[in-house]
Amino acid sequence: MINRLCIIGVGLIGGSLALALKKYSACQYIIGCGRSIENLHNAIELGVIDDYHTDPAVAVQGCDVVLLAIPVGGMRTVMAAIKPALTENMVITDAGSTKGSIIEGAREVFGDLPGGLIPGHPVAGNENSGVIAATADLYRGCRVILTPHENSHEDALNTVTAMWRATGAQVNYMDAELHDHILASTSHLPHMLAFSLVRELVNSPHHDNIFRYAAGGLRDFTRIAESDPVMWRDICLSNKDAILAAIDRYRDELERLQRAICESDADTMHNMFAEAHDARARFRCLLDIQEQDCQ
Amino acid sequence: MINRLCIIGVGLIGGSLALALKKYSACQYIIGCGRSIENLHNAIELGVIDDYHTDPAVAVQGCDVVLLAIPVGGMRTVMAAIKPALTENMVITDAGSTKGSIIEGAREVFGDLPGGLIPGHPVAGNENSGVIAATADLYRGCRVILTPHENSHEDALNTVTAMWRATGAQVNYMDAELHDHILASTSHLPHMLAFSLVRELVNSPHHDNIFRYAAGGLRDFTRIAESDPVMWRDICLSNKDAILAAIDRYRDELERLQRAICESDADTMHNMFAEAHDARARFRCLLDIQEQDCQ
Repeated sequence: MINRLCIIGVGLIGGSLALALKKYSACQYIIGCGRSIENLHNAIELGVIDDYHTDPAVAVQGCDVVLLAIPVGGMRTVMAAIKPALTENMVITDAGSTKGSIIEGAREVFGDLPGGLIPGHPVAGNENSGVIAATADLYRGCRVILTPHENSHEDALNTVTAMWRATGAQVNYMDAELHDHILASTSHLPHMLAFSLVRELVNSPHHDNIFRYAAGGLRDFTRIAESDPVMWRDICLSNKDAILAAIDRYRDELERLQRAICESDADTMHNMFAEAHDARARFRCLLDIQEQDCQ
Repeated sequence: MINRLCIIGVGLIGGSLALALKKYSACQYIIGCGRSIENLHNAIELGVIDDYHTDPAVAVQGCDVVLLAIPVGGMRTVMAAIKPALTENMVITDAGSTKGSIIEGAREVFGDLPGGLIPGHPVAGNENSGVIAATADLYRGCRVILTPHENSHEDALNTVTAMWRATGAQVNYMDAELHDHILASTSHLPHMLAFSLVRELVNSPHHDNIFRYAAGGLRDFTRIAESDPVMWRDICLSNKDAILAAIDRYRDELERLQRAICESDADTMHNMFAEAHDARARFRCLLDIQEQDCQ
């Protein structure tokens, strides 16, 4: 049970955690922090937080856990702002989509990595944003990856693990670098592809008709292109090398397929589609099993 | 009201049309035709068709409408098979995903394009296949594009239009070439991207972990990679030029984004993501309006 939690950035991610912890009575008091007073007012009215401060250094005072749920690009500034108010037993975690840059930023700001710092990433969320989209069940059945470092205290790790488990999430531990490579493929690359596809469609010679005659597949396929541009800019800046490598590998695959189409090479095309088809079917089974495990 | 309909290829597409026409009493008798007797037996047991023949030339006899619902690559062979049994008033339509190749094939097989030939494309379907996946509501609210040619009879066009409208679909008319260009962008390109993404993930250095830590976005984004490999091989062979052009344009977009990431050009990235975000939001509104119109 957390006594007092400070959530810096009360949007979809931070707000959903707050709602889940309240629903399952896993936290006594939640204080929000952010730049928009209107948003913080909304969060109180929606029952997401109990109170708020706009100054991070004030907001974190007396809290046993602090969650940074802001775009990755803002993490250093906020860490610097809360630094004077940090106490030895305060646990700090985050919900950023990249982890290497958080650790790097913390090293710069704090000099040495604090024992209470447990970087984390709830692999959840959707194309919506803002506290208005927050729900208590966002994390149910999802995975949360924690990337503790060489200084991390076991107690802090246990606290953050218990916090996420209370929301119904599965918690896994991983090296920050491995996290960033895996997420580059499973999340960052697909987003880059979706953003690029929507741009291609808008710029295509028949763009007036494109969206009128779009099938359901396109709707699913481009949904993630409605994700927050600021968040994705920050992710690209902070996980640049892994994302570029994933795009390179992807472009090689696409070129190989394009060559087969260009040469009307029916067998190669069929093999490529069949391999992808079979791999996707195995992936679906895996997801179905995971969902059953979580229920 | 159609008296006797012959469906050649009783899978998801042909089977769903049959179920819809039966549900809305828009056809008296449906005869199926295909190579797999087991599948045709299933279709009878599922109440999809009333009877079947495995020989297309026999199956079409006495029918007022014939639907070819097979992969595009098989169309010429089937058109040649039914040619001797064609009568002047027989209406022939198809459900192929490309239209230029159907018209080209018909010209080769029949010498001159028959007045009863109305090429068509229901912009529907999902990653499932086979008559077992057929549902009466597959076409509800979907668009069906018909691409009549210079010889098409008005009566035949009216018959095919009424048939699809009976399923709850919206019917539009379009030039075959324009159809193929639009679908290259809205359907064929996204499928190529999804097939390539799944292949990239399978071949990536961390593929063991990739699918374990996949978020919901990836599930939606790769769903269409489970589509039928034979169907997609045929689509690529028959709409090669338009698909290659769409992939070229897409690769340019992706390269532009990759360059911005490589140069850590935050403003360009943000602008690209924001443009895609806004276009996708407009697209969602358009789809929502269309869905309301159809209800």
